[in-house]
Amino acid sequence: MGALGYIDGRTVDPKELVIAMEDRGYQFGDGVYEYTKVYNGKCFSLNAHIDRLFRSLRELRIPAVFTYDEMAGIHERLISESGIDNGGIYLQITRGWAPRAHNFPESVVPCLTMTIRSGNFNAAQWETGVGALSVPDERWLRCDIKSLNLLGNVLGKQRAKEAGCFEALQIRDNKVTEGTSSNFFIVKDEVLWTYPTGNLILKGVTRTRVMEEILPVHGLSALEKAFTLDFALSADEAFLSGTTTEIMPVVTIDGKPVGDGKVGAITRKIQQSYKSLIVKECGLA
Amino acid sequence: MGALGYIDGRTVDPKELVIAMEDRGYQFGDGVYEYTKVYNGKCFSLNAHIDRLFRSLRELRIPAVFTYDEMAGIHERLISESGIDNGGIYLQITRGWAPRAHNFPESVVPCLTMTIRSGNFNAAQWETGVGALSVPDERWLRCDIKSLNLLGNVLGKQRAKEAGCFEALQIRDNKVTEGTSSNFFIVKDEVLWTYPTGNLILKGVTRTRVMEEILPVHGLSALEKAFTLDFALSADEAFLSGTTTEIMPVVTIDGKPVGDGKVGAITRKIQQSYKSLIVKECGLA
Repeated sequence: MGALGYIDGRTVDPKELVIAMEDRGYQFGDGVYEYTKVYNGKCFSLNAHIDRLFRSLRELRIPAVFTYDEMAGIHERLISESGIDNGGIYLQITRGWAPRAHNFPESVVPCLTMTIRSGNFNAAQWETGVGALSVPDERWLRCDIKSLNLLGNVLGKQRAKEAGCFEALQIRDNKVTEGTSSNFFIVKDEVLWTYPTGNLILKGVTRTRVMEEILPVHGLSALEKAFTLDFALSADEAFLSGTTTEIMPVVTIDGKPVGDGKVGAITRKIQQSYKSLIVKECGLA
Repeated sequence: MGALGYIDGRTVDPKELVIAMEDRGYQFGDGVYEYTKVYNGKCFSLNAHIDRLFRSLRELRIPAVFTYDEMAGIHERLISESGIDNGGIYLQITRGWAPRAHNFPESVVPCLTMTIRSGNFNAAQWETGVGALSVPDERWLRCDIKSLNLLGNVLGKQRAKEAGCFEALQIRDNKVTEGTSSNFFIVKDEVLWTYPTGNLILKGVTRTRVMEEILPVHGLSALEKAFTLDFALSADEAFLSGTTTEIMPVVTIDGKPVGDGKVGAITRKIQQSYKSLIVKECGLA
């Protein structure tokens, strides 16, 4: 089976009609989400994703009506019922159904939906590296919340795709903030740089694992400091990090080479260490 | 009947489950909307709303698979089948259903949903005027598109409500842009000021009718020029304009009076002229 959905205690075909037109997720993007990779029948970094989900809910003041254990249990159920051992699980919670008005409804029940899909994604590109396209960062000022208001990301990703690029690098106030579904790192003189956490980027689960678990092993550290596109182009190496993206080398930006235009040595080390984390947690051969 | 929904050629209970969980409206806010008032069984300013809908669709590159006449016809059908003579019709079009990925799907059918609800809204407040609360404008940089990415508006409106205010006035770069579901005007020395159109505000249908049809009748004109909150507080009068809001006098901002804190004479004239437009178009007594 290639995909399976979940709502309200039951698994469903993802095409089944299960949502009312006035669900606030559908009319306001009033909800939050997470996406967790499944390797070898096990979820990777699940606790970090669920922790961040609870944070996003708190920021939007959507009541968390599900416990950590319930969430983890549904992830396991979707893997087991679908038979999908390698793929990913998407989860979203909206504020729920109410007659349309901007302010929060008085009484409303949050709506959880989930989908598991098979797929192994970007294997070839992890080897060769990819091109990125710079675009203006047009998103709202609460990019720290993993919300369903994703039109800026959608339009950026589409522009990248049409330019033959893997990802868009978003530029705000002359600085590279992040990709549309990934964080962005550069390496210059053996120091890593990445945009600081705050309200203008999402604090990526992969970004955190790279900084806290992988870099120290190699005697490396990352500077959380904003930089320009020109600075990125003058770097020795660049890569994207993300749950689906994993560690993706960026070898060109806007068609110009980063460093010598080849996948860098430090990026390779980080890729290998990331694979090791996956093996350690999910037992993947 | 208090409410009636529409999807796919048929009228439905708005609580009916008619949407798939992977509709891009539900997962990305990838869609646009309009809201039209119904007076005396007739839609007010319907052509302007449908024109703007087509523009929003073009900006997001969602194919317009419905003609003007079809749209107008469904509005009439909802009025007639619901028996609702006074209320409003909400309409949204999403990019449609596809397995989740940020970029546009290759093949996808846009999804139109609509709801009619009865109600006459803000009658008492149109007389007395209301209070407004200033909040940071946290929205994305394409506020000219009437999209479903409305979390900034939702959070602003909620803050206003909790402060006992009718509307939030959003402040970007020290200037008052607009309300969360209305445009904002001030009157100073018999000149009206309002934020210029561009990518940072929605070009309101009511705003346009005030500027093009009402002000000239009274020998008035509006300056499209950004102003600070202090400047607004030093004005003689202030009001909000919008489809539901109509012409709503603002008598306090953050608890401080605008002018003498009473509904202004020019605001009253504009209110009366707006009522006259409604009577002319919808024959309301």
